[in-house]
Amino acid sequence: MTEAPKAVHEIQDDLPGPRAELAGGVPVRLESGERLGPVRVAYQTWGTLNDARSNTVLICHALTGDQYAFGTHPVTEKNGWWESMVGPGKPIDTDRFFVVCPNCLGGCMGTTGPAAVNPATGELYGTSFPIITMGDMVNVQAMLLDHLGIEKVMCVIGGSMGAMQVLDWAARYPDRVVSAVPIAGAARHSAQNIAFHEVGRQAIMADPNWCGGFYYREGKRPEKGLSVARMAAHITYLSEPALWRKFGRELQNRYMKSYEGFGADFQVESYLRHQGASFVERFDANAYLYITRAMDYFDLEADHGGDLAKAWQGTKTRFLLTSFTSDWLFPTSESKEVVHALIRAGVNVSFVEIESDKGHDAFLLDEPDLFETTAGFLDSVARDLGF
Amino acid sequence: MTEAPKAVHEIQDDLPGPRAELAGGVPVRLESGERLGPVRVAYQTWGTLNDARSNTVLICHALTGDQYAFGTHPVTEKNGWWESMVGPGKPIDTDRFFVVCPNCLGGCMGTTGPAAVNPATGELYGTSFPIITMGDMVNVQAMLLDHLGIEKVMCVIGGSMGAMQVLDWAARYPDRVVSAVPIAGAARHSAQNIAFHEVGRQAIMADPNWCGGFYYREGKRPEKGLSVARMAAHITYLSEPALWRKFGRELQNRYMKSYEGFGADFQVESYLRHQGASFVERFDANAYLYITRAMDYFDLEADHGGDLAKAWQGTKTRFLLTSFTSDWLFPTSESKEVVHALIRAGVNVSFVEIESDKGHDAFLLDEPDLFETTAGFLDSVARDLGF
Repeated sequence: MTEAPKAVHEIQDDLPGPRAELAGGVPVRLESGERLGPVRVAYQTWGTLNDARSNTVLICHALTGDQYAFGTHPVTEKNGWWESMVGPGKPIDTDRFFVVCPNCLGGCMGTTGPAAVNPATGELYGTSFPIITMGDMVNVQAMLLDHLGIEKVMCVIGGSMGAMQVLDWAARYPDRVVSAVPIAGAARHSAQNIAFHEVGRQAIMADPNWCGGFYYREGKRPEKGLSVARMAAHITYLSEPALWRKFGRELQNRYMKSYEGFGADFQVESYLRHQGASFVERFDANAYLYITRAMDYFDLEADHGGDLAKAWQGTKTRFLLTSFTSDWLFPTSESKEVVHALIRAGVNVSFVEIESDKGHDAFLLDEPDLFETTAGFLDSVARDLGF
Repeated sequence: MTEAPKAVHEIQDDLPGPRAELAGGVPVRLESGERLGPVRVAYQTWGTLNDARSNTVLICHALTGDQYAFGTHPVTEKNGWWESMVGPGKPIDTDRFFVVCPNCLGGCMGTTGPAAVNPATGELYGTSFPIITMGDMVNVQAMLLDHLGIEKVMCVIGGSMGAMQVLDWAARYPDRVVSAVPIAGAARHSAQNIAFHEVGRQAIMADPNWCGGFYYREGKRPEKGLSVARMAAHITYLSEPALWRKFGRELQNRYMKSYEGFGADFQVESYLRHQGASFVERFDANAYLYITRAMDYFDLEADHGGDLAKAWQGTKTRFLLTSFTSDWLFPTSESKEVVHALIRAGVNVSFVEIESDKGHDAFLLDEPDLFETTAGFLDSVARDLGF
């Protein structure tokens, strides 16, 4: 018998990499008006900051991502989630740039979130954690840069939820962002995406082990609910052609005579069950609730009086947007809305729709067009900055 | 305090409408080779069978439908699910046609299914119920027609899972089907659709009240799991424009300061929660497991040696296929695959893609083009038959 692996909230303090205590331990003011803190940020860096302090690339991770974009992941022992894009000689070239990737506010890999200890009570926050927004995540990243003594970044880059943060960064801190690269993103979360998130949240909250969000002190984990949430979300990350290519409809046992506990007949079922099961080892259910909700609240147009162009009016930040043809979660039309707003705002913007049948997940996968476009853009930004 | 409503499995024997005991109570042979029975079918009829016994329209319902296509539903007390299409003067004209709508095998509104009593044990089947297929459902419908003394139907019609049965009917009993009208259907279930079903099944089986499928004898109901399954499925029945039009992103309370049990902030969330909650009152969780699995197994191409045309080679049955532009669950491309196979098979086929932004659910809603096309087709079939 092997011991069950520890829950994420039990190991997050032991995970490798630096931690920053923000604002000297003074609580951070959230967009809701609430105060939270002291706030701690876990992050990773690669490469070297140049003397001009001008070569920083800030990576914003996606919903279920973390700070381990590059190098072996301490929990899964797999490659970092963006090894295709980050590393020596890669588009985000660690030989040339100083790359920073923080775990987002509300996350569960060392940054303050619902699975962290509330200093006021000594207990884990659980659902006593305050509501957070994309803006709060961006503000906390900005405070991390303050902590690191970095005034300006050459690029903020990220896919999916990361792209939302990139768009928010450029709107909130135009003078600190030389260039912005939102990949497979949107300026607001669609009704369909909110609906899919809600299904995931309901699955988590329906799990009796969720205990109203205080499962930590009960020694329980809502693994089944979180696993169902992950499965539902995972389908939306792929395309029908990608699912078909991976699995077809091969039955492992066609015409079983009885259900035998409703086993996985189709390879796609086995795959989804595996995705669900492995996810719960590296992610906290409450973090999933808070972060999905923050994404659902995101609406830059509403934040700017109904005119998206006002978010970036007159900014000097250069933009590169990328979308993928088969992405139905963040379809090309949503990137185009951003592009049109940027053009109205008189901003320098490039846009590439990449032909891919890999769905939303394409931004994490081997997409030579993405690599070439991003590498060319970052090189041009760097040369403009004189290195 | 009001008493909790009874579970579907507790009321199914009391629901109004006739029941047929099939094959004189002899067990039915399933496609798996298993025997099941005696099998009982609950059904509804409207209109009058003509002397030539030639005016029968058989309606096949969708996954969560039932025999109550027309008239007040005995559980929900709402209109029948296809009042838009069925009734006096409607496309499926009950003044002119004899309309039969059975509850499918595996269902939970009176037809034999996992929530029915196993005569061998006197207990409800639960997950001791054998595996069933679309073909089994169709065979049972054919035996119901035998029971009613109807050799031939002028039309078999249905949407979604009903359309799968229509296609199977025409392949299995070409001499009994004068015309076939599959709406928003497909000849096989896609990998993406199997994946969505699997999420629903996992949600049900993750609910501790499921009790391995024997919740009946425990006096429990996996309501939370079934509700999550319904919510996930419901999103796939709509389109993003339909969701957006219905709800937009109106926040009921923007920037709540705490989660207060993660209430429903967005109208789309309230709507989904309502959909999930009302569904569990009229549907059985095991029925959902068995019927979704039967849909997942459906693959007429595989059943016919990899050539879909062979399913209907040389049949005299006339076909009308309909799809909807915004249906991403059963997209137009899947109807077109059937049309192409029918053309290769030399069959008389019409096909209409209807412009609609209502998603898959369009077949249940007010779609004048659907009404007009179907009415015209059925009228032409009736005139060919001489009435």
